[in-house]
Parts: sequence; C-alpha cells; structure tokens
Amino acid sequence: MTTLKVLCLNCSLKQQPEPSETEALARKVLRSFQQEGLDTEILRLSDYTILPGTKSNMGLGDQWPEILDKIRACHILIIATPIWMGHSASYVQRIFERLDDIFYNPDLVDRSSGRYFTYNKVGAALVTGNEDGAHEAVRHILWGLQEFGFSIPPNSNSYWVGVAGGQINYTEGGGEHHEYTNKNNAYLVMNSIHLARVLQEQPFTTDFKTIEREAKKNGN
Amino acid sequence: MTTLKVLCLNCSLKQQPEPSETEALARKVLRSFQQEGLDTEILRLSDYTILPGTKSNMGLGDQWPEILDKIRACHILIIATPIWMGHSASYVQRIFERLDDIFYNPDLVDRSSGRYFTYNKVGAALVTGNEDGAHEAVRHILWGLQEFGFSIPPNSNSYWVGVAGGQINYTEGGGEHHEYTNKNNAYLVMNSIHLARVLQEQPFTTDFKTIEREAKKNGN
Amino acid sequence: MTTLKVLCLNCSLKQQPEPSETEALARKVLRSFQQEGLDTEILRLSDYTILPGTKSNMGLGDQWPEILDKIRACHILIIATPIWMGHSASYVQRIFERLDDIFYNPDLVDRSSGRYFTYNKVGAALVTGNEDGAHEAVRHILWGLQEFGFSIPPNSNSYWVGVAGGQINYTEGGGEHHEYTNKNNAYLVMNSIHLARVLQEQPFTTDFKTIEREAKKNGN
Amino acid sequence: MTTLKVLCLNCSLKQQPEPSETEALARKVLRSFQQEGLDTEILRLSDYTILPGTKSNMGLGDQWPEILDKIRACHILIIATPIWMGHSASYVQRIFERLDDIFYNPDLVDRSSGRYFTYNKVGAALVTGNEDGAHEAVRHILWGLQEFGFSIPPNSNSYWVGVAGGQINYTEGGGEHHEYTNKNNAYLVMNSIHLARVLQEQPFTTDFKTIEREAKKNGN
Repeated sequence: MTTLKVLCLNCSLKQQPEPSETEALARKVLRSFQQEGLDTEILRLSDYTILPGTKSNMGLGDQWPEILDKIRACHILIIATPIWMGHSASYVQRIFERLDDIFYNPDLVDRSSGRYFTYNKVGAALVTGNEDGAHEAVRHILWGLQEFGFSIPPNSNSYWVGVAGGQINYTEGGGEHHEYTNKNNAYLVMNSIHLARVLQEQPFTTDFKTIEREAKKNGN
Repeated sequence: MTTLKVLCLNCSLKQQPEPSETEALARKVLRSFQQEGLDTEILRLSDYTILPGTKSNMGLGDQWPEILDKIRACHILIIATPIWMGHSASYVQRIFERLDDIFYNPDLVDRSSGRYFTYNKVGAALVTGNEDGAHEAVRHILWGLQEFGFSIPPNSNSYWVGVAGGQINYTEGGGEHHEYTNKNNAYLVMNSIHLARVLQEQPFTTDFKTIEREAKKNGN
Repeated sequence: MTTLKVLCLNCSLKQQPEPSETEALARKVLRSFQQEGLDTEILRLSDYTILPGTKSNMGLGDQWPEILDKIRACHILIIATPIWMGHSASYVQRIFERLDDIFYNPDLVDRSSGRYFTYNKVGAALVTGNEDGAHEAVRHILWGLQEFGFSIPPNSNSYWVGVAGGQINYTEGGGEHHEYTNKNNAYLVMNSIHLARVLQEQPFTTDFKTIEREAKKNGN
Repeated sequence: MTTLKVLCLNCSLKQQPEPSETEALARKVLRSFQQEGLDTEILRLSDYTILPGTKSNMGLGDQWPEILDKIRACHILIIATPIWMGHSASYVQRIFERLDDIFYNPDLVDRSSGRYFTYNKVGAALVTGNEDGAHEAVRHILWGLQEFGFSIPPNSNSYWVGVAGGQINYTEGGGEHHEYTNKNNAYLVMNSIHLARVLQEQPFTTDFKTIEREAKKNGN
C-alpha cells in the first residue's frame, strides 16, 4: 500500500525564525498523521516568493512551481491560516489565484479525460486567531479546494480562537490542551485518512472531455 | 446493491403553484440522477411549516420532523437556493439552525460511536439567480453540510446567474442550454454518485466517543 | 431639534418569554442611546409572523408591514443577531428578502427623486454567540444595509463571542462587563448618533431618476 | 473649501503595462469625480512591493509606507478589485493586514483622542470579473473599511460581472455602457462626495481614550 503524504501550507504572515501560532496547531495535527503512518511536510509560504498572477509559472524568481510540485505529490492537502480582520490571510487567496490555471492548463489535467490533477486528493483546513473569524476562513478554504477538485471529508477543519477582542494566541491561550480543538483535530485526521485511502482504491473516473462535449452539443 | 436516494431541498421563497427557477434547475439535475438509476425526491420548503429554533422538533405545527426523516433516509442531499441580495435564501440558514441539534441530541447520532447520522452521506449545492451571488451561496451551503457530517465531492455545485444587475431568470435566460451550467451539473451528478457508492462500501467508522474521551483526558 | 429614534430588530430564534442573549446586549446598547436623549424601541422578530417572499406585503397574516412602518419611522436601525453555525440567524436574511421590494415599489422611494426611503438613516449591527462568527454576521448585516440605502458610520458594530467551541453565553460569560465589547458599544452609539444628526441637517439629495435617465441614455 | 482627494487602490494582479479591466472601470469612475471638481489618483498595487506583515513598515524594500501616506492624505478611498475564484484579489486582504497596525500604533491615531486617522474619510468599492463574486468582494472591502474607521455612504459600490462561467471581461463585455453598472457608478460618486463634504464640515469627534477608560473601569 502507498504511504499517504500530507502537505500542509502554512499561510502565516510571519517570517522564519519567528514562531507561528498556526504552525504550532499544524505541527500538532501532523504528529497525529505521523502516528497513523503517513508522511507529512509543512511549508511556510512566507519562506517562498510567490508572485502575483494566475498562471502556474509567473517567471523569474517565482517559487510557486516548487509548491505546485508538492501539491501534485500529496494525497491530503491542508491549508492552515491565521485570522486577520476576521478573514483568512492573504496567502490563502494567493494560493487560489495560482491554482486558477487548473481550468486552462493542459499540464494540470489528465491527458485522456481532462480531469484536474487534484481529483482523488483530500482537502482540509486549520485556523488560529486571537478571536473571531475561523468559520469564515474555513469556508473560504474548503470551498476553494472543492472547486479545484479536492474531496472534502466531514468535519474537515479545526481551529482555535479566543474570546471577542482577545489578545492571546493559541499557545499562550492553552490551545494545545483545548478539548474542543483537539476533538476537531482528531476528526480531521481520521476522516481525511479514511477518504484518501478509499479514493486511492476507488478513484473518481469522471470524464471531463465527454461531459464538455455533451454540454457543448446541447448548448446555446 | 441499494438503490441510492437523492433528496433535494428547494429553498425558493415562492409558494406552489408559482413556478420556481431553482426548481427548474434542480429538476434537470434530478433527471440526470434518475438516468443513472437513482431514486430522487424534491421538496419545496415553502410548502412546509418550519418553525424557528434549533431543536429537531419545535412543537405544535412544526413540519421539520418530516423533512428530517427524509434527510435521514437519503444518500445524497442537495440544497438548492435562489439568490436574494447576493446571498442564499433564508431557508438555507433555517435548515442549518434546525440541524444544529445534531451536536446535542443522542437520537441523531450512532448509539455506540456517537457519530452523526449524516456520516457517509454526500452533500451538494445548486443555485440560481438573476445575477451575482452563487459562489457565496455555495460556500454557505457546502461549509454547513461538511460541518454537519456530510462528505463533499469535488465540483459539488452548479449554478446559473446572469450579468450584473440582470433581471432575467434561469429559464428565460436560456440556463437550461447554458454550456457552463450543464457541465457543472454533470460533474455534480457523476461525482456525488461515485462518492456515495464508495462510502456505502467503505464507510467512515470514526469513533466520536473515543475521540471525545481522549480530548477530555488531555484537556485543560 | 427632532428627537432621533433608534429601532433594534432582534433576530433571536427564541420566543418570548424565553430570555434572549442578543436582547441583553441590545438593551444595554439602547440604554446608552437613551442616556444621549434618543427614543429607542426593540422588536423580537420571533414575536411576529413574517411571511417568506420579497414584497412589502405578502398577504393574509403577514406582520412585516408593521415592522416596515417602524423602519420608516426610525433614524438609526440596528440589526441584532445571534450566531448559529458561524452565521447570522435566518431572520437577518428574511429581513433583507422583505426589503428587496425597495428596488421595485414606488411607495418605498421618494416620489420626485426615486431615492430609497432609507436614505439619511443610519445602520448598525450587534451580534452575540457562544463562539466564532461575529465578523461574518456583521459583514452580512452592514453590507445589506448599505445596499438598501442606509449610511454606515465607522465602527458601527459590536459583539460578544466566547472561545472556540464555547458553550457559554453573553450574560453567563460576563459579556456585560467585557471591556472590548463595551468599548465597541460606545463607538457604535456615539458614531451612529453623530452621523444621524449630520444627515438630518445635511441630507443626501441624490437624484435617482436623473441618474437612471443618464445611464439609460448611455446604455447599450 | 478644500479640494477633496479621491484615492483608488487597484488590486489587479496584472503588472503594468498589461491593461487591467478593473482599472478601466475605476478610471471611468474617477473621471466622474474629476467632473465634480475632485482630485483623483489611482495606484496599481502590483507596481509596489508590499511586504507581508501587520506593521506600517515591514522594513527594507517595503513600499507600503508610500501607499499609507497617500491614504492619510485622501478624503475618499476606493478599493477596486478583480474577482478570482469568487473572491476579492489577495491584494485586498494584504491592504487590510497592513492597516491592522491602526489598532496599536500611536502614529496612526489622533494624539489627544486616540481616534483612528481614518475617521471622517469615506470608503467605497469597485469590482470587475468575468462572472459571479462581486457582492462577496464588496462585503469584504466595505466591512474592512468600516472596521478601520471609514464611513460608508449608501450604495457605496459598483461592479460589472458577466453570466455564469463567463469568459468575457468588462471592456469586451460592453461594461462601459452597461446601464446597471453606470447607475451604480453615479450613486457611488454622488454619495461619496456628499458624505465626505459633510464630514469635513461636521467631523466625528469620538473620544476613544475616554471610551476606553470607561470600558476599563466597568470591565471584569
């Protein structure tokens, strides 16, 4: 059986070596994946130059192609983000802008069927913040992943946030021992693994080219 | 093999017998499910009295229990909504309010594991509107379904909307022959069926009670 | 000088006499308005039958016309909502559906200019919840109010939410003494009053009919 | 009387000299402001290096301070964005991340009252896209502006989007002659100017320091 790979993209605005609260939550979750025998990797996007644009390669200095290669190789993709102004960090939307090419680029789809390379991969979301905004960030992430071809298991997100206007972070706020967050961490891990395994054995075989041909034939 | 059941909840504000544009799109999609051998049913929520509240039964006159029984019996749940003010219709949020009981009510979870009754069911979204708002409605619907325990296949939504400020509806606007919408209809149908079948054969067995016990043990 | 009127629409799902946490926050804010000499009124929408639809009067039994009259008479409108599933309560969207008629109904606009009756009124939002979702609810409310013709002062919202997955409400959680919430209450009150007074003295005189005529002339 | 200044931040992902559809809409709107005697300026954010982070100056190479100076000098701020994946471009959220410092940095508030420098400025939004997502982008923008201290006039947004799945842009799609968009352009212009003028004459004088002191005194 293939060893499943989990890739976590940490959208923290903080540069290494500054610690990232989102990374603290993500590393905890990745340890659970490791305990289940999966390979894990985490990237901090602020370590990379990701040029603005909507193509897979925006030219000189663009490091998105490295990240894209890692997305292609993973079975479970987790987007992890802090909350700023009640919203996912700008890197989340930057990821989606760079993935937009999937709708146009023949290198990002299966040659014979036209199916996106993301099919049969599983998507999940992690969020940390001082306060309010986690559900909105999760909505943004999971909807985008689904639109790009990832499958979303039930309860595919976990988060920690403090009380309204809170100034305390995940670690300081005791998030690592927060029962609710840890419960959701476990749902995310178990459900992602199950869905990823099942889709390895019984993958989607949706034929985009046939569907497109039919839609065009009946079109106006 | 079990014949899979598709249930579509139409959140149109229009009362029977007034035609619903959302229903026109939904019926087209349901015909595709039928062609694949599935049983289908569509309910117009405005035909039912769904009392405000967050319990499964809000008392005298409440018809939500009938709808809940149908959700329990289906394998694929589609929430279909018109757009008003760039947003899903109020019935969508009403559905979510009434499903909130899943987090508290032992009758809505598997007795031995505590797993929600929705696990191993598949969720999808359909949206129609004169103009702008479909993605936001889909985000609202799919996120809620995922949170309540449904699995979300890739490209699990379809919609039709017109140009900015448009006053023309799905039918009048030629939505039934709109290539983009029909392509998405087909992705939704094929992907929902595949995921529903796979989850019948290899269901999630996530043990909520064990997970909760572990989380409590490590809690603060 | 006219005594300014504040109307608060409480979107709680709870029926009288059950206490509403959202009402506790709203009443606190309304007391501050009273101390500044304004008249205040609060309605709990669950006390009214508000039929689904998008017209100002949906017929037999519909009590929206009473609420609409009160909106017409106020200078400051506050929509107050609990959070359910990280989202404003369904009554918020129901309000917006019923206000949609403003775009079509000549009784809801100034006869000579076509300007919505809402111009020169001020809008604000209040939110309570056990946990996460306040910013999303505020976004929904303030955007809708702006679209319907209300003016939005700076920091025109206040809220209380607890820690992730929290089960404690506003009152129980000490929200009435929560510094951050009380600060925001005060911004909301002072800014709403200032803007409402200024717009009484120097109202918008935007001429919708002239604007529409120009747009049509240059249209395609 | 002061000549009012309008600043438009174009969040297009396209680099100069590539034409930006969002800029086409923005320039049209700015011409209307000029006709009313206002000074206007438009910046394309992709021409600037805006480092990730939440401080007003993120160090070497960061050009945000130049943009911040221009925001400080304007009376009306318009955030203009394309739609990608049904969402505002990542630059919108980047702007908000960089403005977050307003809550902490004494240089961004009035020394005696603690009031944000943004008070008595007016905010607005412009959006273009091939299809669906304008309302969501507007919600994101106007909510953020309000939270940061801008005042939002009624109908403070305009947009153009095409039919579902559309591949045609604003210019090609005839957006410049689209009646609905042009009507909204005019509302935005007239209402922004009125509110900006009124707030010049009768500014908010909200005393943040007194409010904070009171909140602390009553706090828990």
